[in-house]
Amino acid sequence: MDADKLHDECAIVGVYGPAEAAKLTYLGLYALQHRGQESTGIVSSDGETMHAEVGMGRVNDVFTEDRLARLPGYLAIGHNRYATTGLSTLRNAQPLFVDYARGSLAIAHNGNLVNAARMRTSLEADGSIFRSTSDTEVILHLMARSQAGHLLDSVVEALQQVQGAYSLLIMNPHEIIAVRDPYGFRPLCLGRLQTGHVVASETCALDLIEATYVRDVQPGELVRISQEGVQSYFPFPTRPPQHCVFELIYFARPDSQVFGHNVYLTRKAFGRQLAREAPVDADVVIPVPDSGLPAALGYAEEAGIPFDTGLIRNHYVGRTFIEPQQAIRHFGVKIKLNTIHGLLEGKRVVIVDDSIVRGTTSKKLVSMLRQAGAKEVHMRISSPPITHPCLYGIDTPTHEELIASSYSVEHICSYFQADSLAYLSHEGMMEVARQQEQGYCSACFTGQYPVHTPWRDDLHQLTLFDKQGF
Amino acid sequence: MDADKLHDECAIVGVYGPAEAAKLTYLGLYALQHRGQESTGIVSSDGETMHAEVGMGRVNDVFTEDRLARLPGYLAIGHNRYATTGLSTLRNAQPLFVDYARGSLAIAHNGNLVNAARMRTSLEADGSIFRSTSDTEVILHLMARSQAGHLLDSVVEALQQVQGAYSLLIMNPHEIIAVRDPYGFRPLCLGRLQTGHVVASETCALDLIEATYVRDVQPGELVRISQEGVQSYFPFPTRPPQHCVFELIYFARPDSQVFGHNVYLTRKAFGRQLAREAPVDADVVIPVPDSGLPAALGYAEEAGIPFDTGLIRNHYVGRTFIEPQQAIRHFGVKIKLNTIHGLLEGKRVVIVDDSIVRGTTSKKLVSMLRQAGAKEVHMRISSPPITHPCLYGIDTPTHEELIASSYSVEHICSYFQADSLAYLSHEGMMEVARQQEQGYCSACFTGQYPVHTPWRDDLHQLTLFDKQGF
Amino acid sequence: MDADKLHDECAIVGVYGPAEAAKLTYLGLYALQHRGQESTGIVSSDGETMHAEVGMGRVNDVFTEDRLARLPGYLAIGHNRYATTGLSTLRNAQPLFVDYARGSLAIAHNGNLVNAARMRTSLEADGSIFRSTSDTEVILHLMARSQAGHLLDSVVEALQQVQGAYSLLIMNPHEIIAVRDPYGFRPLCLGRLQTGHVVASETCALDLIEATYVRDVQPGELVRISQEGVQSYFPFPTRPPQHCVFELIYFARPDSQVFGHNVYLTRKAFGRQLAREAPVDADVVIPVPDSGLPAALGYAEEAGIPFDTGLIRNHYVGRTFIEPQQAIRHFGVKIKLNTIHGLLEGKRVVIVDDSIVRGTTSKKLVSMLRQAGAKEVHMRISSPPITHPCLYGIDTPTHEELIASSYSVEHICSYFQADSLAYLSHEGMMEVARQQEQGYCSACFTGQYPVHTPWRDDLHQLTLFDKQGF
Amino acid sequence: MDADKLHDECAIVGVYGPAEAAKLTYLGLYALQHRGQESTGIVSSDGETMHAEVGMGRVNDVFTEDRLARLPGYLAIGHNRYATTGLSTLRNAQPLFVDYARGSLAIAHNGNLVNAARMRTSLEADGSIFRSTSDTEVILHLMARSQAGHLLDSVVEALQQVQGAYSLLIMNPHEIIAVRDPYGFRPLCLGRLQTGHVVASETCALDLIEATYVRDVQPGELVRISQEGVQSYFPFPTRPPQHCVFELIYFARPDSQVFGHNVYLTRKAFGRQLAREAPVDADVVIPVPDSGLPAALGYAEEAGIPFDTGLIRNHYVGRTFIEPQQAIRHFGVKIKLNTIHGLLEGKRVVIVDDSIVRGTTSKKLVSMLRQAGAKEVHMRISSPPITHPCLYGIDTPTHEELIASSYSVEHICSYFQADSLAYLSHEGMMEVARQQEQGYCSACFTGQYPVHTPWRDDLHQLTLFDKQGF
Repeated sequence: MDADKLHDECAIVGVYGPAEAAKLTYLGLYALQHRGQESTGIVSSDGETMHAEVGMGRVNDVFTEDRLARLPGYLAIGHNRYATTGLSTLRNAQPLFVDYARGSLAIAHNGNLVNAARMRTSLEADGSIFRSTSDTEVILHLMARSQAGHLLDSVVEALQQVQGAYSLLIMNPHEIIAVRDPYGFRPLCLGRLQTGHVVASETCALDLIEATYVRDVQPGELVRISQEGVQSYFPFPTRPPQHCVFELIYFARPDSQVFGHNVYLTRKAFGRQLAREAPVDADVVIPVPDSGLPAALGYAEEAGIPFDTGLIRNHYVGRTFIEPQQAIRHFGVKIKLNTIHGLLEGKRVVIVDDSIVRGTTSKKLVSMLRQAGAKEVHMRISSPPITHPCLYGIDTPTHEELIASSYSVEHICSYFQADSLAYLSHEGMMEVARQQEQGYCSACFTGQYPVHTPWRDDLHQLTLFDKQGF
Repeated sequence: MDADKLHDECAIVGVYGPAEAAKLTYLGLYALQHRGQESTGIVSSDGETMHAEVGMGRVNDVFTEDRLARLPGYLAIGHNRYATTGLSTLRNAQPLFVDYARGSLAIAHNGNLVNAARMRTSLEADGSIFRSTSDTEVILHLMARSQAGHLLDSVVEALQQVQGAYSLLIMNPHEIIAVRDPYGFRPLCLGRLQTGHVVASETCALDLIEATYVRDVQPGELVRISQEGVQSYFPFPTRPPQHCVFELIYFARPDSQVFGHNVYLTRKAFGRQLAREAPVDADVVIPVPDSGLPAALGYAEEAGIPFDTGLIRNHYVGRTFIEPQQAIRHFGVKIKLNTIHGLLEGKRVVIVDDSIVRGTTSKKLVSMLRQAGAKEVHMRISSPPITHPCLYGIDTPTHEELIASSYSVEHICSYFQADSLAYLSHEGMMEVARQQEQGYCSACFTGQYPVHTPWRDDLHQLTLFDKQGF
Repeated sequence: MDADKLHDECAIVGVYGPAEAAKLTYLGLYALQHRGQESTGIVSSDGETMHAEVGMGRVNDVFTEDRLARLPGYLAIGHNRYATTGLSTLRNAQPLFVDYARGSLAIAHNGNLVNAARMRTSLEADGSIFRSTSDTEVILHLMARSQAGHLLDSVVEALQQVQGAYSLLIMNPHEIIAVRDPYGFRPLCLGRLQTGHVVASETCALDLIEATYVRDVQPGELVRISQEGVQSYFPFPTRPPQHCVFELIYFARPDSQVFGHNVYLTRKAFGRQLAREAPVDADVVIPVPDSGLPAALGYAEEAGIPFDTGLIRNHYVGRTFIEPQQAIRHFGVKIKLNTIHGLLEGKRVVIVDDSIVRGTTSKKLVSMLRQAGAKEVHMRISSPPITHPCLYGIDTPTHEELIASSYSVEHICSYFQADSLAYLSHEGMMEVARQQEQGYCSACFTGQYPVHTPWRDDLHQLTLFDKQGF
Repeated sequence: MDADKLHDECAIVGVYGPAEAAKLTYLGLYALQHRGQESTGIVSSDGETMHAEVGMGRVNDVFTEDRLARLPGYLAIGHNRYATTGLSTLRNAQPLFVDYARGSLAIAHNGNLVNAARMRTSLEADGSIFRSTSDTEVILHLMARSQAGHLLDSVVEALQQVQGAYSLLIMNPHEIIAVRDPYGFRPLCLGRLQTGHVVASETCALDLIEATYVRDVQPGELVRISQEGVQSYFPFPTRPPQHCVFELIYFARPDSQVFGHNVYLTRKAFGRQLAREAPVDADVVIPVPDSGLPAALGYAEEAGIPFDTGLIRNHYVGRTFIEPQQAIRHFGVKIKLNTIHGLLEGKRVVIVDDSIVRGTTSKKLVSMLRQAGAKEVHMRISSPPITHPCLYGIDTPTHEELIASSYSVEHICSYFQADSLAYLSHEGMMEVARQQEQGYCSACFTGQYPVHTPWRDDLHQLTLFDKQGF
């Protein structure tokens, strides 16, 4: 987990059909661990009774043989959650699991509802009580208040009242419903198992459990998986797609296919485009491991400059580490990355990263490269400057903390003490991204938010909800 | 925890005023550990923000220095819960802590609502969702649906709709409300601290934190503790008191005052009455430690037979212990109790216990005493035969498991292979108990339930609610 | 664990014969938990390979089903250790388990060697290395240096070089050797199982696993249990027995037989003798629970004063508890003990305890009784004043901390603010104790140490050895 | 940790001088985590008292703020140990920490003594007892038996009696001695801190704590670091150097300098040499991440074939993961690695790895690449076939498990179903490796063991020592 990266909120996985649905869900969550390490959970059902196991920590830590054994049945949904400060409590861990008029219900959500605070106030005014501080609980309350006879109808009725980003899995004892919001902000794909079906945030989860990728759940589509097979519905008005372009830049695993794109190849293409836009005379191109690797390869290929790996990553770094009090400078980065002695000595180095958030790591990297003897350090970023927070499910630092929202590229370059700094242009990024799909949300680069949101109310909604908890 | 005893559901403690309210609450819960070892929790408030720490296990295990430090503020409520199979999950641990229209709310409950299943069904039909399987959550939903402007009014409105046993603490960020149901099934007392007030299930909690006992919260009384001091309300129609007589027999700590009684002296008086009703020519009176001690002393005094302690208890017995597979008989009892060699050799022994539930322990004790050389074994029980399950907050085994509901005293005596067996008469018990208070619930001995309850629906309501969980 | 009591160092248990030797050893250790809660361990053998499981904490915490399953075989020895500050580390936990010239070896020790520091220095000078700070390791080194061909001979050779108190179990893959030092300071008894033999510190361990008590291992006796059955040897010169009289006063469980005495009846007899020596005109006799109970009963019977239980013990008190910072007086005692309201009001109370070490608890108890309304408080102690530290295996506070080593009985009485204070006389104690056995060590009351010890060197030997550790 | 790789036994770090020696040692161990994840430990000293903290698990798990705070002082040594089955117990965790005639002593060892079993037998015959099953304890016993007056002399005396591989750190309360065996099998380097000195297995540990690399400890050199500064001794007869060539191939971190080599550049050079020796007509060169990366880059550069990263590694894979029972084939590899869709479609792929041990992973990788559409799969290994076990500190599988010890390259290629398979030649490897240093041990490739070892006795010595343990 890199403190200087943006982070996605969640991964979701649903499995219907096979005898060990929870174990396949567990594997899917394992493959999607990069989308959230705060908490993880699975709810399974044998067709009658639902079983839940939810805990703080990674898939690997939470799910023991014992806990998986307590999750019998042929359908299951699971969730990984990203750790944000303050909200990181078991009561917010998903899937949420409740009883309501039509029985038991579990829900797993990737995204963020922009009108959650308002809906919550209104539901509370009508007598609802909330046990979590998560926006997802709003959907449950809306479903519970629906008078619709079928689960499907109550889901539709509830979702018609919320706005924002959601890829959702909803499960009762005998069916799973997968939904993607009409804008399709977050990804969600559908796969086939020998004896059933799987829905997951990314295709790499399908690969691991040897499911065949069928297609993406479409923006605005609701897929019901039950004894009657897989049924598709489009209950919402059509909207122009707003796929999160940052999935392609950083979030998704490079071996996934997202929004119809091969993520790895797209990242290489971003690197190539960057080389065309911001060439430099240099001796070697190196990536910031591991996220800058594909773009660095693309840049090197396009620029005809040798590629090498000048920074080595310590893969054993855990989430906590103890600093000596008589501190040594640049420690947080040094424990993770080290330079190769001699390799960069006297060289003109291009260092490629996928994005810059606060800029703290980048500054330290430039300094490390100089100490390693680099004659010139040219930083290249395979996405545009991030200037605005995300409202659709990405944990973004405040406006003030986003370095590019306050400073010009020149200023940042000089702050980093780099010889040059260039970002991929918005146009260049879009040109690459649009080769297969048209509609993207790039509000974090432009501030043009596709879903109108009552700014003052909702931007801080999570904070408002938060209280110390369980 | 004796597997052959009845168990109370909970202890509750509330503290208002002092700077370290959570720590005093913690101590109160410590003193009331005997009323529930499954889970424990505290919610505190500094007047604005509420903080919660809830965990599975005993007070001593759950509350570390760190966790208590996360509970700042001058008001707090706490709860100990008794472990029942299947329901023993964190999601049912109390205090429950939620958000609703009027802000944050915590609730701690001792008792059982007889119309909880029906109310729950009705609330769900109106759109409520339930995250626990506890009857207590019903009260929260009713409060959330109240249109009343003040917390107090919403509590009254909610409680007017429920029936059964409840001693409750309800807290928002700046006040605590303590309520006892109109029948006063479960105890609840009020104390004064140097700098505030305390409410607790039993007076022994007051003793520990050096609070002065003021009085019991009255049946049907609602006490509000806030910046405006302590205010008393009687919003419910008056009912004949139905104090749980079993608190006097077994549940309450002997050093507590409950329903105006000194528990220890009452138990001695039960023993004396038993000696008058069921005398026997014997050499020594011994208690089943520790619960039979006061009654055995009373019996011995009244009968003029020497008192001694023929059974020694191993105080280090934990809740789990591992049996050899090639099992030795009577293990569960032997690990807890052992006889004094020689003491009982050739003696005619009266062994006094407070109650018999399934009879399994009693049978083993008679056998142990015979092996220790007792010439005669006369068992005396300082309460009547338990023939009916409790509906008001006590975890009772099923009808079939209550030995006295199926068998006569003669039959039981012969099953125990005792020389004689006698229970305290219902009249005798009541005569002793009524010396200070009139109204008691003794339905577990008589089957005469004071609050009409739709038998089939509600008896198993907890089971119906239960599902595998968090 | 009472902070104001003396504490024994250890319990030892050995089982030879049955298929589940480790499980029976575990049960024996469970019964002897009162002799040490710091660490516990078992070494078992299937006749060829030895297996060890040792951990910090109580029997109940350390031994899970899994760990017991890793201890197969038909012979096993186990050990409980008492927690002393600083030394409480896993490296000192027993049984110690090593390899030496004749294979693998495990040892479990109750007692203390007075010449351990000197022997250790001498062994180190000869090239031995020590991994623990325990005196027990000295014995292992001496055995390892023995040229004797048989385990038995090497044990004898080693023990001929050490002085002090030891009840020992030594085990190789196919035999167990039990030894008691020539003075017999610490107890050790021999029992018979249906399919084997058991050795244990106290008979209560035999009771639990349904072994028949055969006899005590004699002072200076070495018992070898192997395929050849039980063989007895007396390899050491005979010494006058020096049984630890404190085992009878406090250490041993009341349901044990120790040194041929019924512990419970002996304690009652101490109480009776105390009543004869120090009578008082009073209304009620109460014990300090639980250790003062038998003596209080004896006192009450002899004095003809009614016995009652005026102090109630909270059995849920763990080893840690958190004090509010704005502390309430007398907290450490109040969390453990509370008075019965009203019972002592206006009464002249005799309170009986078995011993006084630092006096801190006693002072608080007198104050609690006065607050409970006692008109007079007469403290009676069923053993003489403790004036000297033990050198033979009991963890005694320093000379300065022993209240009776610095102050007269009158002074202590006035410090306690008791109306009177009386200890059992040394003569009275001995008269009772000698009814079955002659030789006792009562050095803690007299300073007459039966085994000559180089005072300055060895008194602090454990401290000298101690270093921070594993 | 890759199950199909060889594993080094240990890392060692020593720090002398700065106020927080233990924290710097901890950081050094963090940087060397790749050399052992089974257990870790640090012993520190303030010049008088030594303190030890040792635990099972990784640096990150074992060392909390609390544990590091218990390690005061200005000198410290630390150790990481590799997890091997059966021996993986706390009693074998290092640094070993003991008392002997000259006080306290700690030792940390990387390597393996070939005559340990024989020495152990002889030491036991002379009365030594062993508490671990590690060969390192032999050195302690030899030192303890030395009559030498100084630590230094006793170290020399002890080491003159052992044979094999050792890079050692030995510490008493006020000095650290670093030694490397006369053949210099394992690396050890010396660095300078602003306020002191550091010794570590690899230079990457120096980088992290911002120490300056001074030089390697020489084969046969003994370095004493104390108040008198750094003193160098060469007490052993000179031997031809036998540096472990596998450190260059796989063990060392690529950012380290080992035996005077830049590890990363050496690996690239192995790849280049491999390209010259075993060229192939192909479309893309991909590494097996992460260990095959430098060699793949070198191969690609030399061969003029595009480099790409066709396999993506899941960095969240823990050491345990739970397989569904209705297993999916190739799971162990799939959870760690996945292919990039489309990237390899129809391509002729060269896949480069650093070595093959059992061949299980390689076979699965070939199959994964074919499933990803590769038209041809050419496997290239940047080291020769491993045919013999290591006797000098590397945990090698048995002869039977080493695929290359039983099968020809052709056979292995056909077993992998690869289109071609080529290893780097021994000559080629040596040519690259000898560019800076002459003497290497490459016994795992040739069976020519530089230190004569009594084969039958010592090969299995660890197994012989092993018993179940603490």
